[in-house]
Formats: sequence, structure tokens, C-alpha cells
Amino acid sequence: MQDNQQQAYDRGITIFSPDGRLYQVEYAREAVERGSATVGVRTPSGVVLAADRRARSPLIERDSIEKIHAVDDHIAVASAGHVADARQLVDFARRQAQLDQLRYDEAIGVETLTKRVTDHIQQYTQTGGARPFGVALLVAGIEDGEPRLFETDPSGTPYEWQAVAIGGGRDEMQSFLEEEYQAEMDLSGGVDLALEALSVDADVDAAGVNVVTVDVESGTVDTLSDDEVGAHVEELDLGGEE
Amino acid sequence: MQDNQQQAYDRGITIFSPDGRLYQVEYAREAVERGSATVGVRTPSGVVLAADRRARSPLIERDSIEKIHAVDDHIAVASAGHVADARQLVDFARRQAQLDQLRYDEAIGVETLTKRVTDHIQQYTQTGGARPFGVALLVAGIEDGEPRLFETDPSGTPYEWQAVAIGGGRDEMQSFLEEEYQAEMDLSGGVDLALEALSVDADVDAAGVNVVTVDVESGTVDTLSDDEVGAHVEELDLGGEE
Amino acid sequence: MQDNQQQAYDRGITIFSPDGRLYQVEYAREAVERGSATVGVRTPSGVVLAADRRARSPLIERDSIEKIHAVDDHIAVASAGHVADARQLVDFARRQAQLDQLRYDEAIGVETLTKRVTDHIQQYTQTGGARPFGVALLVAGIEDGEPRLFETDPSGTPYEWQAVAIGGGRDEMQSFLEEEYQAEMDLSGGVDLALEALSVDADVDAAGVNVVTVDVESGTVDTLSDDEVGAHVEELDLGGEE
Amino acid sequence: MQDNQQQAYDRGITIFSPDGRLYQVEYAREAVERGSATVGVRTPSGVVLAADRRARSPLIERDSIEKIHAVDDHIAVASAGHVADARQLVDFARRQAQLDQLRYDEAIGVETLTKRVTDHIQQYTQTGGARPFGVALLVAGIEDGEPRLFETDPSGTPYEWQAVAIGGGRDEMQSFLEEEYQAEMDLSGGVDLALEALSVDADVDAAGVNVVTVDVESGTVDTLSDDEVGAHVEELDLGGEE
Amino acid sequence: MQDNQQQAYDRGITIFSPDGRLYQVEYAREAVERGSATVGVRTPSGVVLAADRRARSPLIERDSIEKIHAVDDHIAVASAGHVADARQLVDFARRQAQLDQLRYDEAIGVETLTKRVTDHIQQYTQTGGARPFGVALLVAGIEDGEPRLFETDPSGTPYEWQAVAIGGGRDEMQSFLEEEYQAEMDLSGGVDLALEALSVDADVDAAGVNVVTVDVESGTVDTLSDDEVGAHVEELDLGGEE
Amino acid sequence: MQDNQQQAYDRGITIFSPDGRLYQVEYAREAVERGSATVGVRTPSGVVLAADRRARSPLIERDSIEKIHAVDDHIAVASAGHVADARQLVDFARRQAQLDQLRYDEAIGVETLTKRVTDHIQQYTQTGGARPFGVALLVAGIEDGEPRLFETDPSGTPYEWQAVAIGGGRDEMQSFLEEEYQAEMDLSGGVDLALEALSVDADVDAAGVNVVTVDVESGTVDTLSDDEVGAHVEELDLGGEE
Amino acid sequence: MQDNQQQAYDRGITIFSPDGRLYQVEYAREAVERGSATVGVRTPSGVVLAADRRARSPLIERDSIEKIHAVDDHIAVASAGHVADARQLVDFARRQAQLDQLRYDEAIGVETLTKRVTDHIQQYTQTGGARPFGVALLVAGIEDGEPRLFETDPSGTPYEWQAVAIGGGRDEMQSFLEEEYQAEMDLSGGVDLALEALSVDADVDAAGVNVVTVDVESGTVDTLSDDEVGAHVEELDLGGEE
Repeated sequence: MQDNQQQAYDRGITIFSPDGRLYQVEYAREAVERGSATVGVRTPSGVVLAADRRARSPLIERDSIEKIHAVDDHIAVASAGHVADARQLVDFARRQAQLDQLRYDEAIGVETLTKRVTDHIQQYTQTGGARPFGVALLVAGIEDGEPRLFETDPSGTPYEWQAVAIGGGRDEMQSFLEEEYQAEMDLSGGVDLALEALSVDADVDAAGVNVVTVDVESGTVDTLSDDEVGAHVEELDLGGEE
Repeated sequence: MQDNQQQAYDRGITIFSPDGRLYQVEYAREAVERGSATVGVRTPSGVVLAADRRARSPLIERDSIEKIHAVDDHIAVASAGHVADARQLVDFARRQAQLDQLRYDEAIGVETLTKRVTDHIQQYTQTGGARPFGVALLVAGIEDGEPRLFETDPSGTPYEWQAVAIGGGRDEMQSFLEEEYQAEMDLSGGVDLALEALSVDADVDAAGVNVVTVDVESGTVDTLSDDEVGAHVEELDLGGEE
Repeated sequence: MQDNQQQAYDRGITIFSPDGRLYQVEYAREAVERGSATVGVRTPSGVVLAADRRARSPLIERDSIEKIHAVDDHIAVASAGHVADARQLVDFARRQAQLDQLRYDEAIGVETLTKRVTDHIQQYTQTGGARPFGVALLVAGIEDGEPRLFETDPSGTPYEWQAVAIGGGRDEMQSFLEEEYQAEMDLSGGVDLALEALSVDADVDAAGVNVVTVDVESGTVDTLSDDEVGAHVEELDLGGEE
Repeated sequence: MQDNQQQAYDRGITIFSPDGRLYQVEYAREAVERGSATVGVRTPSGVVLAADRRARSPLIERDSIEKIHAVDDHIAVASAGHVADARQLVDFARRQAQLDQLRYDEAIGVETLTKRVTDHIQQYTQTGGARPFGVALLVAGIEDGEPRLFETDPSGTPYEWQAVAIGGGRDEMQSFLEEEYQAEMDLSGGVDLALEALSVDADVDAAGVNVVTVDVESGTVDTLSDDEVGAHVEELDLGGEE
Repeated sequence: MQDNQQQAYDRGITIFSPDGRLYQVEYAREAVERGSATVGVRTPSGVVLAADRRARSPLIERDSIEKIHAVDDHIAVASAGHVADARQLVDFARRQAQLDQLRYDEAIGVETLTKRVTDHIQQYTQTGGARPFGVALLVAGIEDGEPRLFETDPSGTPYEWQAVAIGGGRDEMQSFLEEEYQAEMDLSGGVDLALEALSVDADVDAAGVNVVTVDVESGTVDTLSDDEVGAHVEELDLGGEE
Repeated sequence: MQDNQQQAYDRGITIFSPDGRLYQVEYAREAVERGSATVGVRTPSGVVLAADRRARSPLIERDSIEKIHAVDDHIAVASAGHVADARQLVDFARRQAQLDQLRYDEAIGVETLTKRVTDHIQQYTQTGGARPFGVALLVAGIEDGEPRLFETDPSGTPYEWQAVAIGGGRDEMQSFLEEEYQAEMDLSGGVDLALEALSVDADVDAAGVNVVTVDVESGTVDTLSDDEVGAHVEELDLGGEE
Repeated sequence: MQDNQQQAYDRGITIFSPDGRLYQVEYAREAVERGSATVGVRTPSGVVLAADRRARSPLIERDSIEKIHAVDDHIAVASAGHVADARQLVDFARRQAQLDQLRYDEAIGVETLTKRVTDHIQQYTQTGGARPFGVALLVAGIEDGEPRLFETDPSGTPYEWQAVAIGGGRDEMQSFLEEEYQAEMDLSGGVDLALEALSVDADVDAAGVNVVTVDVESGTVDTLSDDEVGAHVEELDLGGEE
């Protein structure tokens, strides 16, 4: 398809191209590819989310480059793509979690939450007056004692994964995960695998990576300290730091 | 018709072309063709839905690639096309089924449900501010003790079938069904026919296919286990697995 | 008028061309011409509607290719054109009929119903945010003991007919009707004339034709069985069946 | 002005061209010119409306080709142009007449009614989201014992006439009226003049013309029978009938 | 500025061009220039409005070519430009006058009324979804015993005048008024000046001109009869009538 | 930037160009430049506003070419640019002043009022469906005994000035003010400076200039009579009048 | 990407380009670059904001070129970019601060406030009918005894900084800050660093710079007087003033 024709499907609202594609959604997927890398790994004892959060300046507070967010005490969400859009979806997810807590006095399920988010995303691809969300999310949590790891893409489709990478360099990282993933890893092994996947495409250092785990036993979201991340990085001999 | 003219009917809202066609609806049909294959077979003892759900990565949870969904305990819906759109229509169908249950304290009819869904689809092809749904559905169920199998297309037209294929490779699969369909098959024979039709275009393996039956006797939706599907696949000698 | 200029009147909403035409309405008429043929014949003893409903596959349930619908027990509607649009108008007509029954406790008149439908159609050709309906209807019924036969076209104009054809091959069928129509036929002769008109353009077989009559005496809508249609077809020696 | 520039004023909503013209309104006037001819003649004893209603098929019911409509028992309206639009304006006029009857318990004045209709028409030429009405009306009635004859054009301007022609062949018919009109005709002479004007452009036969009078004495709308029209036509030796 | 650029500012809504102009408003001014001529003259003893209302056919009722309208008993409004638009503004003005009468039990001031009208006009030039009014008005009346004469233009700006011409031939007529206007004329002299101004561009005859005065002494609007206008025309030896 | 690209940012709503500019706002500034000149001068004893209000015809009432308006008894507003837009903003300002008087029973502050007006202007530059205001205002008043002089521009930014010129010839007039302004002038000196600035670009005569002062002592708005203005003009030997 | 393609993503609403970018947001960032420079520096004892506010005329009141605003007594906001947009966001921030004070009777947190503002900004980049805000803000304040410094960008992303520059010349100033920033500066050293950063790109004089500090000890916003700023400038030997 030449450029001229393609242009016709870029304007105004999200509509089908003659070959049945939604270009605005595909372009939103490009926005995800432009984002920095994020990896999720599910192990029997919990789920790991690891995200690249290298700063464009040494003076920026790393904590403000939020890539992984706790939605409630047992679910965390990592994002890749347009940062401001990610924040909207995280807020939406948090409101959904609070709503369920208030209504039913019990924590929202990981799958239920994921589907609420993908329904919300889909609306922005079908009705006019808005653009799609330019972000993919990884939703990690414990549901009925089981670790769950979901991906939402810009079309509004949910996928459940054992291990998955989103954002810049996704293809290389996903191939690495497919080769190295073992179903019976422990949580620490999951952290190692996630960090190794992130380092496929670029050097990794402890301060430049955000790592969060959701533990089956405790059922809660934990953020690894820079020291904890550093220990893993050093052990794995990743990155170019001396 | 040259490309330039065609472009004129692609933009903004769904309007008629000079030869009386609705291009956005036809493009939505292309989105269905881009989807993976789905087959429905009606037998005197029940209806079979079988759908290709091969994953793009071995690490994806196959259960999360939903292609067949129970709408209530006696109706199932399979889809081909834009996955996020399918989820919206399935949710719509579920809400309709629950509404009828609440209002009249009885289960919604298969035909009634199908027409509610097609009315909903048609609205999105006539009024502005939205694109058509890029998905076709097969609706299977038991109504007054009779097995029923319907198709909804992106224009919002319902069709009732004895056996039907939608999605990628539809034409070849439908020809196969027309040659091989026998009105007096039992449900197991229906599963065989559906799996054979799916394999016309590509290898089939048990884990890559989702099979659901709606049984006249029990009146309920049942999902075949991987082992059950595997037994059929092996017996039929389908796919390239050793 | 060259193609370039014509394009200008195709986009967005339905507007006048420099020569006073509404192209979107004319294109909707093309959608009617693309539909399969439908014929209506009025006789002193009742009205006949006959519609081609040949299926694109032998596995499709012919009953689901609805071309003639009872609006209430004394009025039937046949359609040609965009099927999903036809369903909307039939639903609209049924709601109007029910409304009158509830409000005035008497059956709606055929002419009144037709005009409600054409008003509804016209709205879609004048105000923005929607496309015209791509369908023509034949409305047949008994009003005050008199048989009535109306056509609605995509502009929203009602016409009353003695005999009329809509859909693919309309011109040839209408010419045939003008030559062969006799005011004093009985209802059976009306069925014969309708079937002969349908066969002008293509072979006719009993299963491929839907025939409905509205009888003056009984005042009710009756659908002919395949056997009854078959008897007429055989007697007339229509179609290519042996 | 070249075609390219003109195109710019055809799209979307009705806006001014650089030379201060409203093209959509002018194109709507073309729609009137494309309609069949209608003539109005005012005499001291009443007003005559005569309209060409030749059918495109001998099987169409001439009564369904409505060109002249009673708005209430003392006002009639004839139209030329887009038929479905005419029906909307006639319905609007009838609602206005009923409203006044209900509110003030007296019949609406002919001029008042005309201005309500033209206000309604003007709205459709100034605010967006709709196209102008493609129809002109002649409004004939008795007000305070005086015969009145008004025209409404697609811009929404009312004109009062002694005798006027609208629709196809308007210019020739109007010239004929200007030459032949005499202020002191009786109603029968008015019918003759209207029929002669209609025949300027084409043959006239009794069944193909709709004639309505509004009589000062009785103050009511009367439709001439085919026999009455036929007598006038024969006497005048119009048309090509033998 | 070339044609291509200019086109860009003609479409959809009224926006600024690069040199700070509002083309739709300027084009609406062209619509005024296309209208027939109207003149206003203020004298110490009252205000005169005179408008050309020549008919396109001798059969049209001149009274229906309304160019001057009484808004209430002490204010009259004359218009030039798009006739249907003028009617809307006159109706708006009348509603404003009635509203003030009802609310405050006193007649609306001429300046107040003019500003209400110009505010209304301005709205149509700034917010989308509508085109500007294609008409200019002259508002004449008595306020606190003083004669007032205002003009409203299509941008929504009010101007107060001693003597002013609008519509076709405005420039020549205004030059004539500037040369001939004398502050101390009586009302009859005002009528003469207005008629002479109208005749600058074309012949004037009594029936083709509408003349209205608003008298300081009586404080009321009076329409001159054809005889009264004829006397002035004859005395002034205007037009080409013998 | 070439013309073609620039066009893209002119249409529909106000959006950013690739170099971060809002063209519709800049074009609105051009509309200000097309307006006649207006000058404001602040002195310790009060603020002076002087505006060119030369008429396009000697018959126009100069008072109706309003360029300076009292908003309440202690604040005056002068405008340059699109006159009808200026009237809307002045009305908006007056309503704000009245609202504060009613709510808090005290006069609105000059700065508060200016910011309300600029907020209102900004809305029209960011949200769709409308164009920006094509006018700049000077707001002059006394607040807590201090003279204040503000400018509002079409972007909705407020500026406070000691002396400022807006409208046609702004640059030359502003340079003049910068050279000649002295902080310790009395009010009469302020009037002189304002008139001299206005005369930089063109001749000035008393009747063609509107001068208003807001006096610190009285705290009220005063309009200078033609004689008072004439005295200043004569003394300064401005303009070409003999 | 060539110009033609780029144009397609500039129009109407904010949509994704084929490479996943939001051009309107990027152009809004250009509007920030066109603004004058603003610097923020965080020290253990408080936060410093310094902004260039050089005037285009010596007669403009410097105080009216507001670049730094107190949101409440413990938070200040500085802006770079489109001034009128900045005012809207500052007003929004103030309303949020007041709302929290009223609702919870405690001061809003610096991070909470920043996120409310960025949510508001993001809405304007995703839903149609408006353009993005063309401004970046620095939000400085004391939260739980800790100094905080945030940036909001036109996409609606919040960043926390130790030291940051926005507006014209950002890149050079940020490099300077990265080289010279020391975590253990006192507040006076912070002021020095901010002024030196501002002077990287241009001369600095006391009157042309606005400096505000938020002190940890007092917890309040303080504006430095021209003399205080002058002392720093002199000491640092910045600018070209003698």
C-alpha cells in the first residue's frame, strides 16, 4: 500500500483500511515500541516485573520516572509507551480496584481488573472524538493464591503470559525469554531472568532498573531496593559498570 | 473503480459508494478474514464450535486467547476477526442474556439473542461517530430442545447454518463442509467434521484448537479438554505432530 | 459531470449536487438494485409478495434468509437491498403497529404504517450523522376490506401499486408485469404472475422463493409452504429443475 | 467562477461563496426544477392548484403520487421537487394548523401558515448538520373571505402571487400565465388557465393531472374528479389524446 | 492573495485569514450587495426608509416582497440582502420588542434593540455550526422624542447614521446622500432625498418602491400609499414612466 | 515556512504549527493591526485612553463608532480590531463588573476584571467550535487609589503598562511613547502625549478622536468633549486642519 | 518523513503518526521552547525558581509579565511557553489547592498537585475538540518538611528534579546545571546556581529576572526583591550591565 492511500486511514477517527486494519491502533503500537523496555516473568512463587527507567539527565529523580505502579496491595502494573497515557490507565485501574473493594468488600481479581482496563482501551479505538491509548501494560498479581501475569495491548486485547516483554527491543527480549524460561524457577530466579532479558538490548545497572515482585506467600507487592537489584545485577555480571 | 474514488468512501463515517456498497463494512469483513479460522457444525444431538487459537509465543497462556465464550449455560459464542471487538460483542450478549433472565426469569432464545446482537452491530454501520465491528460471531445453543447455529456478520445480518466457517481460509473450509456435511451425524462426528474443516488450511494440534459443544440432552455448554481434543485429532490423523 | 465533481457530493452528509440531486440517496438506490428480486401483486381477493431467497451455500438455513416479514397479522413487508437495514425498518414497522394497537386498540392502517416508515427513512436523508437506508420495502395488507400494496424507496417516498418489482432486474420484471397484469386475477393467479415475474431474470425453484399472501376474506398473512410454491412452479414450468 | 472554486461551497454545511451566494440553496432550487410542474391561479372566487402527476408505470396508483394535499379544510398545498421533502413540509404545515386550532380555537391564517413554513425552511439553510429542503410549495387558501396564493422557495422566502408556476418548465409556464392571466376570471376559468399553463410544456390528460380548488364561498378545499378534469381538458382541446 | 489560499478560509466555520480577515463575513457582505437597494434618511421631524421592491413578475403581489417591516408601533426595519435571513432578524427584533414591553411595560429603545440584534448577528460569526446572516438592516425609530437611524452589518457592528444606503449600488447612493443631505430637511424632504438616492442607480416608479416614515410628533410608523409615493416620484420627475 | 504548510494550520480549530505557533491567534492579532489606533497613558493622577474614530462617511454619527466604553463608573475600556468582537468583550466585562457589585457589594478591581476577560479570551483559543476574538483591549481604571492600565491581547494574555499603543501603526506609536513618556506627567500631559502618539501615523482632529480619562481623585470615568479635545489638538498643533 | 505526510497528523485532533508520535504534543513542546527560560534548583534547605521576564518595551510593568506564581503559601509554580495557557494551568492548580484545603482542612501535597495538573494536561491530548496546552510548568514546594521540585510537560507527564531548566535555551542550561549542581548547597547557593544557569544563554539583570524561593524552615513562598536579586547578580558578575 502506498503512502497516499495509507494517509486516508490516519485522519480523524479510527476506521478500517481496505485490508481490514485499524491504522491508528497499529500506530499506537508503534508508540509502545518507542517506549523503554519492560519485562514480566511468572514463577510458581510469584510474579516479577522489571522495567528500564534510565533518566535523560542525572538530575532527574529516578523515582519520578514511574514505570511500575502498585494498583492495590496485591496487584502491580508496569507500562511501556506514552507515559502520560500509562498514568491514565493506572489511575483507571486503581479506581476500579477501590470500587470493587467498596462494593464487595473484597480485592478485585487480576483477570477482572485486566478486562476492565482492556474494555476501557477498546472504547477509545471504536468511537470517535479520541485517539487510542499509546501504551501497553503488564498486570501482575496473585488471585486465589495463584500468580497471574497479563498484558494489555493498544487494541484492548488481554493476553495471559508466563513471561513477556513489551516496549523497545521487544522481539529480541521475547526470543530470549522463550529460550530461557523454565516453569519451575523461584522468585529470585524470576528476577534474574527478567534482568537478563532487559540486558539483551542494552546495559543494565541497578539504579536504571525498577523491579517489583508480587509474592504468592505474602500476597503483596514489593519493590526491590537499589541494593537488592544491584546484588542481582552484579551476580549476573550484566551491564558495563565496573 | 480506481483507488482515488474508493478513498472517498473510506473516510469518516460509513456511507454508500456510487455502486451502492458500504466500504467500511466490507473492510470490516476483511478484518474478519484476517482473523484465525472458526467452524460451527450443527448435528441433531447438539452444536459444535471449534476455533484455531494458536499462540504467537509458547509463553502465552492459551486460555487467554479466548475464541469461544459461554454466554450463559446453554449458549456459546465463537468469534473470528478483531479480538477486542469480539470481546465487546460477547459482553453485550452476556448482558442481554442476564437481562432476560432477570426480567422474565427464563433463558434467552438463541435466535432472539442473535438478533439483539445484529441490531447492535447494524447501529454501528449507519450512524456516525464510530466504526463498524470488525468481527463475525457464531452463536450456538439449544432452543426448545432444538440445536441452533447462527452467524452474525459485520453488516449486522444474522444467518442460520447447518455448518459454517468464518475467518481466515473461510472459502476452502466452507467448500469442505458442503461436501462432507451429513445431516444425521452424532455430536462426536460433528467434532470430527469441525476439526477436519479447520485442518483444510493448516495443521491442527490439540492444544491449538478450542472445541466447545452444546448438547441437546443436557442443554449445556461443555468445553472439551486438551486430551479429548487430542483423541479426536489423533484418530483423524490431522496436523503434522509426530 | 466528471468523477471529480461527483466525489464532492459523496462525502460526509447527504447534500445537493449542482443539478439538484442527492447522490447518497441515489447510491442507496443502487444498494437496492444490488439486492435480490422481490415482487408484489395486488388482486381483488388479496395481495401477493414473492421474493427470491436463494442461498450462497446449501448449508445455510433458508428460513434465516428472511425477505418477507409479518408486521402484524394483517400486514406483511418484503424487502430488497441491504439486509441489515431492512431488519431495522421491519422492526420500526412492528413497533409502530404495536404502538397503535396499544394506543387505539385497533390495527394500524396499511397506508398509515407506510407513511410512518417513509417519514423515518426521509429523516436519514436530511439530517447529518447518518447514511440513508439502503433498502426498498413492499408493504402489503388489508385495510377496511381492501387490498393495498405500497412501495417505500430510499428517499422516503411512498408509492401505491397494482403490481411492482424491486431489487435486481427490476426493469425487466416491471415491464413483464405491465404487459401481463390483469385487474381481475384471483389470488392464485396473483401468485402465478409474481413467480413468472421473478423468473424473467433467473430460474426459480420452490425452495428458493418465499411467497406470502394477505387474503381479503380472512384478513391475515399466510406463508405458502414449499409444496404449495412447488405446485405453482411446476404448473408454470418455471426454472431449470427437472 | 471555475468548477474548482465552486466545489468549495458545496461541502458540509451551507456557507456563503465569495460572491455572496448560498450554493446548497441554489442546488436545492435545481431539485425543484427537476420536479414535475405545478401551477397556482388566484381568481376572485377562489384559488386553483393544478399539478402534473404522470406515473412512471401504468401499474402505479395515481392517488399515491400525491402532489396536492389539504392542510386543513380551507388550505391546500401543492409541491414541486423532492417528493419525500415535500411530505415533511406538508406534515409540518398540518401540525401547525392543528396547533393553532387547539390553542386559539380558530383556523390558522394562510399567510401565518406560510411564514411558519418558510421560517422552518430557513433554519435548514443556516445552521449545520442538515441540508436545505429540495422543494417549493404553493399554499392556497381563504383568509377572511379573501383568496390567497403563496409560494415558498428553498431559501425560506414567502411570495404572494396572482398566478404562479413551479417545477419543470417553470419559465415557459410563467410567461404564459403573465400573458393570459386576467384578474376577473371565475374559478372555472382559473382551472382552464392552470391546465393550459401545464400543457405549455407537455401533453395533459385528465388522469395525469391533479386539480384542487379552494372556493371563497364555501371556504373549503375541493378535489376535482377525473371526469371534471377530463371535461376541462376536452373543452380546451389540450394534450394529444384522441 | 491567490484563489487557492482564499479557499482555505471559506470552509466550515468562520475563521481568520492570515491578514486578519473573516472571509465568510465578507462574503455575507457580498450577499447584501446582491440585494436590492434600501435607503434611510434622518430629519429633525422623523426618519424615512425607502426600499426598492421591484418584482420579477407582474403577477407577484408586491406586498409580499417585504423590504420594510414594523417591529413595534414606533420602530421600523428595512433590509437588503438574503430575504429569508432578513425575516429571521426581523422576527428576532419583534420578539425582543415584545419581551421588553412585557417585562418593563415600556417600549424598547431604538439603540437597545439595534444592539440586541447586532449581538445576535455576531454570535453567528464566531461560534461554529452556522453561517453568518447575509443581510444588513436599517433600524429607524423615535427614542425619547429623538429620531434615530441605525445600520447593522453582517459582522454584527451597529452604526448610527444621518443618511445611509445599503444593498446594490450602495457606493453611488451614499455619495449622492453625502452631497445632498441637509440637516434641516422636513420629513417630506427626507422622502424626496431617499427616492432620489434610490433613483441614482435605476428608474423608480411608485409601485416599485416601499416608503415608510417614523414621525417624531406622532411617534408612530406610517407606510406611504402608492399614491403618496407616486406624488413624490412625479414631482421629482424620477424614473422613465410617462 | 511555505504557503502550503501554513494553510494546514489555518483550518477548523486553533492548533499548534510544527514550530509551536498558533496561527489563528496570530491572524487574530492581524485583525487588531487592521483596526484603527488606540493609545493608553498612565500618569500619577489618572489614566488616559485616546482612540482614533474617524468615520468612513460624514453622515455617520461619530458617537456610534464606539471605541472607548465605560465598564462601570471607575473603569473604561478601549479597543482596536474587529468592532463586533470588541462589543462582546465589553459586554462580558460589564456583566463581570455588575456580578461582583451584586455579590460582594463592592466595585471589581481593574486587575481582577482584566484577568476575567483574558481567561474568557483564552478559552476561545483552546477549545474547538469557535474562532479567537479579533480584538485587543486597553483596560484603564483606579484600584485602591492607584491608576492601572492593562492590555489584553488575542491570545488571552494580560499586560500592565505605563503607556501603550494598539491597532494600526502600533510599532511607530509605541516607539514614540517610549521616547516621550515621563513618569511624572499630570493628567493633561497624559492627554497631550496620547494625542501626539496617535498623530504619529496620521493627522488628528478633535472630532475624529475619542478621549477618556479615569481620574485618581474622583475615581470616575470622564469623556472629554470635542471642545476639550480640540483645545489640546490646537495647542499641540497636530493634524492638518486650518 | 516528508512534509506532506507530516501535515496529515497536524490537523484537527491529536492522533498518532505511523511511527507512534503525537505531533500536536511535540509542537506544543516547541511552543515551550519558544518561551523564555525558567530554572528550578532544589537544595536541602528549600527550592529556588528563577525566570527570565525581560519585557518587549520599557513601558510595560514587569510585575505583569508573570512567570512565577504562588499556588498557595507553600507551593510556587513557574512556567515557560504560551503565557495565556500557563495562566489557565496556574488557575487550575490554585483551585485544586483550595479544594483540598476546604475538603480536608490541610494543604495539598506538592506531588498530588503536580499529578492533578498533569492529568488535566493529558486529557487535552487525547480527546478531541481542543488543542494541548503549549506550556511547561515547574512546581516547587515543601511537603512533609522536604523540598520538592517537579516539571510538567505538554504530554502530561510529571518528572521530579534536583535541578531543571525549561524554555528557550533549555539544552545549554541543563548541561550547565548537570555540571555545576551540588546536592549540599544552601538556598543562597541555589539562587546563585539558578541565576548562572539563566545567564548561560543571555545577559541577566536584576529587574529582568523573577526569583522565588520556598524555604524548608518557614515552609513558605518568598519572592526576592529586585535589590536582593541585584545583590546576587552583582556578586556573580553576570549580565552586561555596568
